Amino acid sequence: MKKTRITVWNENIHEQQDKEVIEIYPDGMHNVISNFLSQNPDFEVRTATLDQPEHGLTEDILGNTDVLTWWGHKAHEQVKDEVVERVKIRVLEGMGLIVLHSAHYSKIFRALLGTNCSLKWREIGEKERLWNIEPGHPITQGIGEYIEIPRNEMYGERFDIPTPDKLIFISWLEGGEVFRSGCCWERGHGRIFYFSPGHETYPIFYNEQIQKVINNAVSWAKPRVIIPDSCPNAQPIEKVVNIHDASAKI
Amino acid sequence: MKKTRITVWNENIHEQQDKEVIEIYPDGMHNVISNFLSQNPDFEVRTATLDQPEHGLTEDILGNTDVLTWWGHKAHEQVKDEVVERVKIRVLEGMGLIVLHSAHYSKIFRALLGTNCSLKWREIGEKERLWNIEPGHPITQGIGEYIEIPRNEMYGERFDIPTPDKLIFISWLEGGEVFRSGCCWERGHGRIFYFSPGHETYPIFYNEQIQKVINNAVSWAKPRVIIPDSCPNAQPIEKVVNIHDASAKI
Amino acid sequence: MKKTRITVWNENIHEQQDKEVIEIYPDGMHNVISNFLSQNPDFEVRTATLDQPEHGLTEDILGNTDVLTWWGHKAHEQVKDEVVERVKIRVLEGMGLIVLHSAHYSKIFRALLGTNCSLKWREIGEKERLWNIEPGHPITQGIGEYIEIPRNEMYGERFDIPTPDKLIFISWLEGGEVFRSGCCWERGHGRIFYFSPGHETYPIFYNEQIQKVINNAVSWAKPRVIIPDSCPNAQPIEKVVNIHDASAKI
Amino acid sequence: MKKTRITVWNENIHEQQDKEVIEIYPDGMHNVISNFLSQNPDFEVRTATLDQPEHGLTEDILGNTDVLTWWGHKAHEQVKDEVVERVKIRVLEGMGLIVLHSAHYSKIFRALLGTNCSLKWREIGEKERLWNIEPGHPITQGIGEYIEIPRNEMYGERFDIPTPDKLIFISWLEGGEVFRSGCCWERGHGRIFYFSPGHETYPIFYNEQIQKVINNAVSWAKPRVIIPDSCPNAQPIEKVVNIHDASAKI
Repeated sequence: MKKTRITVWNENIHEQQDKEVIEIYPDGMHNVISNFLSQNPDFEVRTATLDQPEHGLTEDILGNTDVLTWWGHKAHEQVKDEVVERVKIRVLEGMGLIVLHSAHYSKIFRALLGTNCSLKWREIGEKERLWNIEPGHPITQGIGEYIEIPRNEMYGERFDIPTPDKLIFISWLEGGEVFRSGCCWERGHGRIFYFSPGHETYPIFYNEQIQKVINNAVSWAKPRVIIPDSCPNAQPIEKVVNIHDASAKI
Repeated sequence: MKKTRITVWNENIHEQQDKEVIEIYPDGMHNVISNFLSQNPDFEVRTATLDQPEHGLTEDILGNTDVLTWWGHKAHEQVKDEVVERVKIRVLEGMGLIVLHSAHYSKIFRALLGTNCSLKWREIGEKERLWNIEPGHPITQGIGEYIEIPRNEMYGERFDIPTPDKLIFISWLEGGEVFRSGCCWERGHGRIFYFSPGHETYPIFYNEQIQKVINNAVSWAKPRVIIPDSCPNAQPIEKVVNIHDASAKI
Repeated sequence: MKKTRITVWNENIHEQQDKEVIEIYPDGMHNVISNFLSQNPDFEVRTATLDQPEHGLTEDILGNTDVLTWWGHKAHEQVKDEVVERVKIRVLEGMGLIVLHSAHYSKIFRALLGTNCSLKWREIGEKERLWNIEPGHPITQGIGEYIEIPRNEMYGERFDIPTPDKLIFISWLEGGEVFRSGCCWERGHGRIFYFSPGHETYPIFYNEQIQKVINNAVSWAKPRVIIPDSCPNAQPIEKVVNIHDASAKI
Repeated sequence: MKKTRITVWNENIHEQQDKEVIEIYPDGMHNVISNFLSQNPDFEVRTATLDQPEHGLTEDILGNTDVLTWWGHKAHEQVKDEVVERVKIRVLEGMGLIVLHSAHYSKIFRALLGTNCSLKWREIGEKERLWNIEPGHPITQGIGEYIEIPRNEMYGERFDIPTPDKLIFISWLEGGEVFRSGCCWERGHGRIFYFSPGHETYPIFYNEQIQKVINNAVSWAKPRVIIPDSCPNAQPIEKVVNIHDASAKI
């Protein structure tokens, strides 16, 4: 079986600048994500970061990526529009996209969903419990009734997204809010999964259940087809008896 | 009751250049649409065209528009990105948007849906029958089992759109195709209706059933709220007992 | 304008037997619901209860009901199957149905949705906060960001329902759960709204916000068409050139 | 890998009574379906028919079935309610269900969807073309743009079903209708696929593309979990500070 080729994209700025983030992710969040995904023998994983030429997302690399994971926060605006457009085209052709935490505000997520993707937020390190409302879905296999995260940034409703094709997780927040924290969409021939955990100041990507969800999501999102966009002029299949006559009355 | 304020937008190029279009729509398609909508005493209608300053879609005009209808074909690329962004913001705040025929490829429709919005097409003037599959929906009130259009441009599947929140019409095409010809979506607080009839070389906007659908669609799409986008930092409602401690093990 | 004809159905057993319920609803919950709905000049309200002949839901009464509200808990099994079938037929023809609280387990709700409609529950009188995630929806007009209920029975996920056509409220529960507490579906030509508040031992139907939601829901659910079921043999519209020949090879 | 255990259910009455059906399916339609599915090495296939004790669908057989396919037409009413209930329970627990052609009117399909499942029909042996509108879906892998069936019974809209979770095929009918001919739903933990081809008087189940779709649908519908229904009383996870007090004012 052909391996699923994954590109783990990370902004990788907090990990250079913020002492508390450096302590948790000394080699960058992307390497932690890449490492746990690499333990899956069906996966082939590379990383890419903002500071690389074309943000590490050249035509060639995207053309050899089945699933792209995306983490960004401080520098959404620094991601070049032409790279965003390139990723968008690839997703619509069939590539999977896993959008993590603060990437709800990434250019690529907003471009694919068409909405603002705004939400409520609060950063006091409160408890979050993600309820698994679809235990039969591929993304929740091996996850129990819920995932508990002792400390996370709060994301709360209203989350300005199109109604998900499938809502997988709903979060309970200690401070009193709720959040649609795991959401699936299909766009073009590609599959998109948004998963809200992953604030940079907590070691969330070391959590085994979080790792399992991302692992499952990659498997779920891998393409079954890659179909470039076209808008073809088509010949009729059946005989058309009407004669073109613009003056015909309707 | 406050009137619904409608702005009918038209590219208005074919009506200046193409003899057969000029014969059908000598004053432009927008005036025909505006005229039939104006017969509804609950509606207040203005028009706007590409050649006007800011395409006739200033902040002030959009701020006083409840529902915008859009027809474009030849000049999608001439619509300025900043105007598209302004319309998009307004739709997400709550304004209704009715997208007609070849505007499936307009910047605004593609920006709001996030997909390519491509389709199959053929221009030989064949028959189309739009089947009403939701006779209980506000948009189909007064429409019978189907609408028949003797001659239209063919639009066929696959139509590259997100699954509609509600599929209203499916078309049968004489040449052998089918098409999702009436589709509803909600994005942000706004409602969007795509309706495929309306090729410029046929007098389709004089058809009373087509007029009724557009009339109904405007009523359906009118906003119940206008809520500007925000991404607020929120105080907790419940007491949070966890202490922020980034080094906590997960 | 024709008034919306509402029938408020109640099992009305707790109000005969349980002291604490009698104190809150001495005339039965149905009369409290009927009273607040009757303040809407567009509504015409009657009540019906389990103990009446045919549970008060004769062909004649249903045939003159636009929207039916349903509260039941202890005696779901006492509702006759033929009455359930009659209500189901009427909903599929176009009548609206508002399903309250423990009626998640009513025969009619389960028959229309096809799933078990099971959930988690706990009765310790905890706080519930219903987050309004669709402020633009007709059902949430006049409701702010959330509704808070100081004491309610807990209903928690996983709620075994088909994905709602539109999810309106998500609840935060003091004890740590979440719940899809306001859900819309369309079935046949009818509209269904499930709303989870309303436990009999708390005075929830006196809460003005709860009353407003039910009021809005009735307006949203009122029929635009009533279409009896049929499965017609249809003549072809287009000429069919194939000759019926069962032995034709495929 | 564990094989997918399939039970192919057939009413098997036409094949005993109608000369033209006997010629096409001398051993019954179920054996043709069973034969082509058996060529898939991942599948283990058995058949069951109406005339068997409990219609061949005992607790034991259902408990060892991953995916059930269903064909019925003349004798829907002869299927015992207790067997229908048993199948329904099993689907909600996770078993897949493939509903073929005239089984749109089977008790099990109507019980799971909650609607009438009525449609328009005509039996003159006309051409049908099923357009594949989801080329990236598991069910359409290996299928091109469309499937053409030279002669079939016509099924046309309006098809009285809940909006499909995913619409896969839309049919063009020679006589002028359209039809949602391939539809997916999830109910409970189970997956349901309705596929309209398969009239008994045409050799449709010998068509290789039809066989491929059913093959793919079985793979798509196989369960990832089997979870019996429960409605548990749950202990709070978080501390609840409110004291139960029914007289509290709201």
